[in-house]
Amino acid sequence: MKKIAIILSGSGVFDGTEITESILTLLHVAKAGAQYQCFAPNIDQLHTINHLTGEEMQPNRNVLVESARIARGEIKEIKELNVEDFDALILPGGFGAAKNLSDFATKGPKANMNPDILSICKSFAVSKKPAGYICISPALIPIVYGADSIATIGHDPDTASAIESLGGKHVQCNAKNIVIDEVNKVVSTPAYMVATDILEVDTGISKLIKAVINLCS
Amino acid sequence: MKKIAIILSGSGVFDGTEITESILTLLHVAKAGAQYQCFAPNIDQLHTINHLTGEEMQPNRNVLVESARIARGEIKEIKELNVEDFDALILPGGFGAAKNLSDFATKGPKANMNPDILSICKSFAVSKKPAGYICISPALIPIVYGADSIATIGHDPDTASAIESLGGKHVQCNAKNIVIDEVNKVVSTPAYMVATDILEVDTGISKLIKAVINLCS
Repeated sequence: MKKIAIILSGSGVFDGTEITESILTLLHVAKAGAQYQCFAPNIDQLHTINHLTGEEMQPNRNVLVESARIARGEIKEIKELNVEDFDALILPGGFGAAKNLSDFATKGPKANMNPDILSICKSFAVSKKPAGYICISPALIPIVYGADSIATIGHDPDTASAIESLGGKHVQCNAKNIVIDEVNKVVSTPAYMVATDILEVDTGISKLIKAVINLCS
Repeated sequence: MKKIAIILSGSGVFDGTEITESILTLLHVAKAGAQYQCFAPNIDQLHTINHLTGEEMQPNRNVLVESARIARGEIKEIKELNVEDFDALILPGGFGAAKNLSDFATKGPKANMNPDILSICKSFAVSKKPAGYICISPALIPIVYGADSIATIGHDPDTASAIESLGGKHVQCNAKNIVIDEVNKVVSTPAYMVATDILEVDTGISKLIKAVINLCS
């Protein structure tokens, strides 16, 4: 049975992991007959957003503590993730990927990743274990995989341009489809970057999980 | 196209709506070709639980504001719910149903419901519009539907006994199945009250949504 590590970045689209994308990731990993374990960094969020009003609220929250809501408490700190224990990696989307796992939301083409997250993602890359990046998370693909890696975030020109500035190649894609970088064994799908309903997100994530598991050696 | 009202009770199994059950409810409503609108009461939670440690944390949070995380901000206050605008009602589970929508978690067989939630649920009942109650939410069925209404929360003897004390009839059921009270047009499934994995929850909620929509006149 394949074992999939999932990195969460909080709980809620505007300051953490996109909740629907996270749950559909868990669902399709289970449907594929694989096991999952969720991880998150034990750090403060960039900020905390009231999801009713869109305004910043106090006090700020912790990424690991909030991610535990999605995982029903079954989550580990990212420093406990041993790459040799897993066959593949998935990063769901939500602004948390661009605000907490990296500073892409504020730095765009000059973004850096949280060092612990970068280290884990690079370990999967160098060991040729496949990975799936969902929604805005594919903006991190050029940082992890380097020049000429292939990613999609849908068709937003500014975000696509930032990916190209980071050294990646952006491919346009709708929410029901995926883009596969066969050389790097990394798959991406735009999900709620472009989706108009939950069915499109479900279709795209279903395809992404199947493709990632097919790439497992 | 059928329109389904969904009542959330926060965001997280231990103090709000169970997140997986909520997202699978949205997914299966959409798969059935129906529309959904989420609602929640604008009240404080009973308390806020750190989902990593299980301990209470401060400050407390608001049910509507936290529920908005699951709904990506697309949520309305429960007082805006006009029953005539909807064909059916769904209450996902999580401790929020027993801590925020009612005091079942602390009062058990002497539980009362939040007056606004009770009023809405009773309106669906008296207008013979179907409803689906998931996980621990079916504990509210005898309060809404009165004597001899039929519900399942799985097979926990204490919770089943409390339902019977409230006047309901409890039927044992596993997470992959549903119980239908044909007289009252109310369907229940135990979900994470007994489920051992997300696939069982997915199967049970899929069946519940189909049954609720089939009961729509």
